[in-house]
Amino acid sequence: MKYLTNEEMLNAAIWEAKMGHAEGGVPIGGAIFDSEGNLLGAGHNRRVQENDPSIHGETDAFRKAGRQKTYRDKILVTTLAPCWYCSGLIKQFKFGKVIVGESVTFQGGVEWLRESGIEVIDMHSKECIDLLQDFIHHHPEIWNEDIGE
Amino acid sequence: MKYLTNEEMLNAAIWEAKMGHAEGGVPIGGAIFDSEGNLLGAGHNRRVQENDPSIHGETDAFRKAGRQKTYRDKILVTTLAPCWYCSGLIKQFKFGKVIVGESVTFQGGVEWLRESGIEVIDMHSKECIDLLQDFIHHHPEIWNEDIGE
Repeated sequence: MKYLTNEEMLNAAIWEAKMGHAEGGVPIGGAIFDSEGNLLGAGHNRRVQENDPSIHGETDAFRKAGRQKTYRDKILVTTLAPCWYCSGLIKQFKFGKVIVGESVTFQGGVEWLRESGIEVIDMHSKECIDLLQDFIHHHPEIWNEDIGE
Repeated sequence: MKYLTNEEMLNAAIWEAKMGHAEGGVPIGGAIFDSEGNLLGAGHNRRVQENDPSIHGETDAFRKAGRQKTYRDKILVTTLAPCWYCSGLIKQFKFGKVIVGESVTFQGGVEWLRESGIEVIDMHSKECIDLLQDFIHHHPEIWNEDIGE
């Protein structure tokens, strides 16, 4: 069994975000682990790369993890507080725990998830903040499109 | 310009649900129209067909419709009241109007969307109810998996 720290799990999502950045896309990444620290799936936003608005970091990781009998014992990690779309995913499938890189740039549904009884841990990661805010500074129109503004 | 009635728009989603049924999958379909009645995208649940839990009728239609500058003037049509995952999608991207085939089998986030100021029209379609309830009767385990139970 390989137990991972929250920081180590967040690093998987940050790595995905960096790949997204290198591809010219929105640098937000996600990953899903089981309770023993096994990585089930990881992914990143690919709105730009594939012209696909449905692929957020969280939904990509969810797809990559494949069908699961339950998500209550799974951990979803994301570099940014999940938007309503991804918060709805977390609520519907009853993820037990969510690790968020940062919630400064965007707050999404974090409080709503907490009110629903889901554990949300905010890592206050400067690396996550800097990565996304640099992208928003250079591509504000893509960011606004990604959050439906 | 080709204006369509709510029934005509719902029929596009029902057609998708029937294709899903013919493929052995969860028979839920979705479609997105612009305000003039142009079909921008349509799709259906493909959890079974592609082993992909991220493809619900609504998210598939959203993907097929491609990137849009705004969704405020778009109409999302679905054979079943949207689950939290799809309700979150609707809220995040600020769809102006949602047409729901039925909300008897499942209520999802319909009231939450209405409280958010989104117009939700329930068509009380017996055809939608029968199509899904027949599937649930024969495949209760797949249905429960699809809603995270």
